[in-house]
Amino acid sequence: MSSVFGTLFRVSTFGESHCPAVGAIVDGCPSGMELSEADIQPQMDRRRPGQSELTTPRNERDLVTILSGVENGITLGTPIGLLVHNRDQRPDDYQDMQAIPRPSHADYTYQVKYGFRAGSGGGRASARETIGRVAAGAIAERYLLREHGVEIVAWVDSVGHLDAGAIDMASINRQAVDLHLVRSPNSIAAQAMAELIAEVRDNDDSVGGVVGCVCRKVPVGLGEPVFDKLEAMLAHAMLSIPASKGFEIGSGFGGSRMLGSAHNDPFVQKGERLGTSTNYSGGVQGGISNGESIYFRVAFKPPATIGIRQNTATFAGADTVLEAKGRHDPCIVPRAVPIVESMAALVIMDLFLRQEFRLRGR
Amino acid sequence: MSSVFGTLFRVSTFGESHCPAVGAIVDGCPSGMELSEADIQPQMDRRRPGQSELTTPRNERDLVTILSGVENGITLGTPIGLLVHNRDQRPDDYQDMQAIPRPSHADYTYQVKYGFRAGSGGGRASARETIGRVAAGAIAERYLLREHGVEIVAWVDSVGHLDAGAIDMASINRQAVDLHLVRSPNSIAAQAMAELIAEVRDNDDSVGGVVGCVCRKVPVGLGEPVFDKLEAMLAHAMLSIPASKGFEIGSGFGGSRMLGSAHNDPFVQKGERLGTSTNYSGGVQGGISNGESIYFRVAFKPPATIGIRQNTATFAGADTVLEAKGRHDPCIVPRAVPIVESMAALVIMDLFLRQEFRLRGR
Amino acid sequence: MSSVFGTLFRVSTFGESHCPAVGAIVDGCPSGMELSEADIQPQMDRRRPGQSELTTPRNERDLVTILSGVENGITLGTPIGLLVHNRDQRPDDYQDMQAIPRPSHADYTYQVKYGFRAGSGGGRASARETIGRVAAGAIAERYLLREHGVEIVAWVDSVGHLDAGAIDMASINRQAVDLHLVRSPNSIAAQAMAELIAEVRDNDDSVGGVVGCVCRKVPVGLGEPVFDKLEAMLAHAMLSIPASKGFEIGSGFGGSRMLGSAHNDPFVQKGERLGTSTNYSGGVQGGISNGESIYFRVAFKPPATIGIRQNTATFAGADTVLEAKGRHDPCIVPRAVPIVESMAALVIMDLFLRQEFRLRGR
Amino acid sequence: MSSVFGTLFRVSTFGESHCPAVGAIVDGCPSGMELSEADIQPQMDRRRPGQSELTTPRNERDLVTILSGVENGITLGTPIGLLVHNRDQRPDDYQDMQAIPRPSHADYTYQVKYGFRAGSGGGRASARETIGRVAAGAIAERYLLREHGVEIVAWVDSVGHLDAGAIDMASINRQAVDLHLVRSPNSIAAQAMAELIAEVRDNDDSVGGVVGCVCRKVPVGLGEPVFDKLEAMLAHAMLSIPASKGFEIGSGFGGSRMLGSAHNDPFVQKGERLGTSTNYSGGVQGGISNGESIYFRVAFKPPATIGIRQNTATFAGADTVLEAKGRHDPCIVPRAVPIVESMAALVIMDLFLRQEFRLRGR
Repeated sequence: MSSVFGTLFRVSTFGESHCPAVGAIVDGCPSGMELSEADIQPQMDRRRPGQSELTTPRNERDLVTILSGVENGITLGTPIGLLVHNRDQRPDDYQDMQAIPRPSHADYTYQVKYGFRAGSGGGRASARETIGRVAAGAIAERYLLREHGVEIVAWVDSVGHLDAGAIDMASINRQAVDLHLVRSPNSIAAQAMAELIAEVRDNDDSVGGVVGCVCRKVPVGLGEPVFDKLEAMLAHAMLSIPASKGFEIGSGFGGSRMLGSAHNDPFVQKGERLGTSTNYSGGVQGGISNGESIYFRVAFKPPATIGIRQNTATFAGADTVLEAKGRHDPCIVPRAVPIVESMAALVIMDLFLRQEFRLRGR
Repeated sequence: MSSVFGTLFRVSTFGESHCPAVGAIVDGCPSGMELSEADIQPQMDRRRPGQSELTTPRNERDLVTILSGVENGITLGTPIGLLVHNRDQRPDDYQDMQAIPRPSHADYTYQVKYGFRAGSGGGRASARETIGRVAAGAIAERYLLREHGVEIVAWVDSVGHLDAGAIDMASINRQAVDLHLVRSPNSIAAQAMAELIAEVRDNDDSVGGVVGCVCRKVPVGLGEPVFDKLEAMLAHAMLSIPASKGFEIGSGFGGSRMLGSAHNDPFVQKGERLGTSTNYSGGVQGGISNGESIYFRVAFKPPATIGIRQNTATFAGADTVLEAKGRHDPCIVPRAVPIVESMAALVIMDLFLRQEFRLRGR
Repeated sequence: MSSVFGTLFRVSTFGESHCPAVGAIVDGCPSGMELSEADIQPQMDRRRPGQSELTTPRNERDLVTILSGVENGITLGTPIGLLVHNRDQRPDDYQDMQAIPRPSHADYTYQVKYGFRAGSGGGRASARETIGRVAAGAIAERYLLREHGVEIVAWVDSVGHLDAGAIDMASINRQAVDLHLVRSPNSIAAQAMAELIAEVRDNDDSVGGVVGCVCRKVPVGLGEPVFDKLEAMLAHAMLSIPASKGFEIGSGFGGSRMLGSAHNDPFVQKGERLGTSTNYSGGVQGGISNGESIYFRVAFKPPATIGIRQNTATFAGADTVLEAKGRHDPCIVPRAVPIVESMAALVIMDLFLRQEFRLRGR
Repeated sequence: MSSVFGTLFRVSTFGESHCPAVGAIVDGCPSGMELSEADIQPQMDRRRPGQSELTTPRNERDLVTILSGVENGITLGTPIGLLVHNRDQRPDDYQDMQAIPRPSHADYTYQVKYGFRAGSGGGRASARETIGRVAAGAIAERYLLREHGVEIVAWVDSVGHLDAGAIDMASINRQAVDLHLVRSPNSIAAQAMAELIAEVRDNDDSVGGVVGCVCRKVPVGLGEPVFDKLEAMLAHAMLSIPASKGFEIGSGFGGSRMLGSAHNDPFVQKGERLGTSTNYSGGVQGGISNGESIYFRVAFKPPATIGIRQNTATFAGADTVLEAKGRHDPCIVPRAVPIVESMAALVIMDLFLRQEFRLRGR
């Protein structure tokens, strides 16, 4: 298993669905930054289950504790230990499913790969694994914002067939995103999305969606060609989030249908640097940030755990019918918003530390 | 710069557009495999420029030499040095462009990040950087095919607005793909694609496209949750290819519009293992291969270097008009086919070596 | 800061001297192994401060808790979270020393590198940092012993000028080592060592020493030439332990004075494999284990924190006299014994997982 | 096999004893540095075989070619490909030894680990593997010297039982070291060492030795606690050199015999920083450089390939007598001097790039 992410800003996470605690170690955080639990908790609250009627009824407060790396409210440069206790564990909910791997869930592949798997709730494949990502990401984005003004904002771009419509990526902020439980900024679309999720939930079904994200004020020069291009690291990070199935940056799949003469972003002088008058590139050229806003989209499939009866097979291969119990989200994208932001922050922070600042401005 | 890829099967590449040679070191290749240049050259030929009227007129034979790691035609387990000479260098073609960064190319970001940049042809951001990937990938896919029967086949899935139509992923093979210069298996679509590329070429413009890829017979159990899920590694690999803008696996972005009850892949007994009767998952569940075919799509933007006049700015910020010279591909996807295959092979090979085989089948 | 060790068996540690807790995450532990806190605690007890009159009077029980990765007493293959609370914190002991960097301690270099440093007790440079290593090492050695019979035993080989004398590396075990508080197996030498440590302690001084270690029954073939040779990884691991100043394997520095004709280890048939009749190589040839016992020695300097008055300078550069308070070990080697064992286990475990078992026995 | 070294300044090497070429890729070299083959060749010449009567008669000119990463004599920031052809190959010399593993050489362990091994001359375990290290190291030390004034000088500290005597580490330089073929700066000792090596050579035997090394003017703050302490990285690097058996930094093993009151290095004001009046620490405290000279010693065993008759066993386990043919060094330390310097440069360079310069001087 690979539970470490990053080269210089390295995050290790641990924890299954129903063990005593989950958490993370953040190694490589620069010293001298003010940090307390209060700086991390808001993103934890945006991620936590049970936060609204649109999410899983599993109710966890997910209070984070800093165990190390901070003294007198200032980071020491040493690893930051982060802990969150699991409280609302109900392993019994899952006992009926021990003989039947849930379709499109990780039950079967974990069984083959590890021989053993957590007996309940998805184990390491549970969404609770993302707690460590969000806690670590909150630290990264705090550094990026305070030291360099980097702003990272994600939103729900679609739920099922319902699209959010045009987004003003220059101005969108978390307050606007959080106005609606579904975390989509357009009121009319948000209302329709919430209704769709409620309908799907009431049908014991689930639905997919897309999260959009913009990273503003990222300095020029981040990203390590050839293999660790900025977009490659973002794609790696986003496809490591449970249930994600796709990633596109800038013009993305749509850009593949365009001509170069229309797609190229002309350069123009912007203040002291060159900028571009359009941004089909999504803020990245040659794998390196160009100073324009980085924006990308992440596709999430419908959650695999559904209450509807499914024809499938047991681990032993016998035909069976599964009615999954346990608590699950009818649609993951509202809660995926802070996870996408956190993973983006981890990528940018790591590339930031990897950048050779000695050479800058030559 | 980060020119090393992989954890146990590690590939390091070097080379710019107009230096004496490009190449790679493949570290971690198992010993005891028959290997000669003849096993690598076919993919080099599929990647090389000048192979057809649809590609750049730069003409390179790209003959690969094995410098080490093989004795008497057998791999030793030691690093395999691979070398390809650059022959058709014409640095003079690029002298007019020294003062003007090409729009949507890496000229500007390289200048800011490195202070210096190769004076010609894109330097490290040139497509010649991918030679090392393809040479290394050919070794990986040879191992995977011989030892485990893994078959990796990519094809052109769209060019601009032209789609290849339905592909039979169970049977598609490289011979069928190569029947048409454009490397798309449907004759009617391939003909239209070729005409579109020729038209775009004649207009000094360029066009984007999408490459599809399937990996058959990958054993169950590959992929390292949490952060190095199989799909995360594939996304990382694919977004590191020059000009790529998007990645989707299985149902991808389309899957985000579906309900769980339709999207879940029911289990059925298949021979000695569990299989699934549909494959929206794209062969991966919980970040681990499930024994079904892995398939994914990669979006490529139109090449940035075009001959059409473009209004843009000089490095110094002055308004200017650029008519780019130099030789370039009007559409990258026919040559991207072996690159996508190679990167897929590198990912699967590395995850293969990382898998704990001691525990298998417990 | 780099608090992650290993390639496939990866250990991340956190914790300073006086923060709420210290601990580790062990990623990559194979699934299916019986494991509980009781398997880890014995090595924690051998490492803990306050265990005898020869160690620091700081008294910590250092009880370890497993937070994740184990269910029903069996490892899941997921990361194992390990936690130990700091209890006997006395930050006030250190307030007088805020203006004066302790000679040969990390106070000054941490201040320069991080701008900030933990206000008390050495922070991350405290011996408490080694708790995570020992907890993780106990898991690694449990796996190595149960699955492959690997036995790792360290002992105190010298204290100051007092040597332990000849050690029978074929039979030495932890019970014999622990017969004496000083952890040296020769009773006469152990008595003298204990007296020397007591004398040094009573003088508010400190003394150095050497730890020897043998790893028996390591299978042939572990170690990754060129750069990750078995001895290179061991040297890395041992020199990362606080206060270590030297490492030698097999004949070591003494071997540099020998002739090849005397130093070479002749091969002889041993059971089903080739063995050697002497073992100046220390169980490693060409960076790869050869099936003989691996043995090495690690030199430790005298602890830097001493009560004796020292002429030195303040951070500001003014001449001063320091009488260090705080609790410290007069000699670190008795407590270093389990730390050396643990780091050896982490190295062997990681190289074990990196070994290509597919090819074994060809 | 692990042929990649470093985190940000990453060196990949390839090549066996008798393949067409050996070389390296240096990834992560900063852009904008003047560099040509003439800057690398001097260290290649100090390493090359056949340079004097004290080394192996295998005669290689070892001319290095830069294949990429440099344009118009300036580094681009892209990977630097380095190539050296093998010329004086005589595989036939080794045919008699195919059935008999050389005692204390890597023949046996390579056979077990890889199933195959290079048929001649030690393959990857040959000293020719170190060519890539020296070529890469020459680039690193050029950068460190030009940008930061870092001076790295190694010398032969002992040959067999003959010691070089006191060395003035503040002034020793390569010119003084190279005055004598044996690369030891004391004329009387050097003469005796040369005679010992000649005698050993004439007896078809070999002898070990120790290389000392000092790194002057390394800035304060390099080294990444906990696991990548400066001394841990140096130990890793040095024990990865073929035939090395030990490493000690500062007071080393001798320091283990001292009292803390004598061993501690008192602080004194030195210019604008704190320095120490003694340097038992060897320039490192808490794993971080403290601004004093870093010095260390590396023990090398006598070369394993000797012409004297040795009683040993065949691969099949039968008793036999081996008279090894092939060309070998009677003593490796004169040629190890540039290798030790190069590995030190690689370590310091990598830690230099890993240092967070943003925070410096806060």
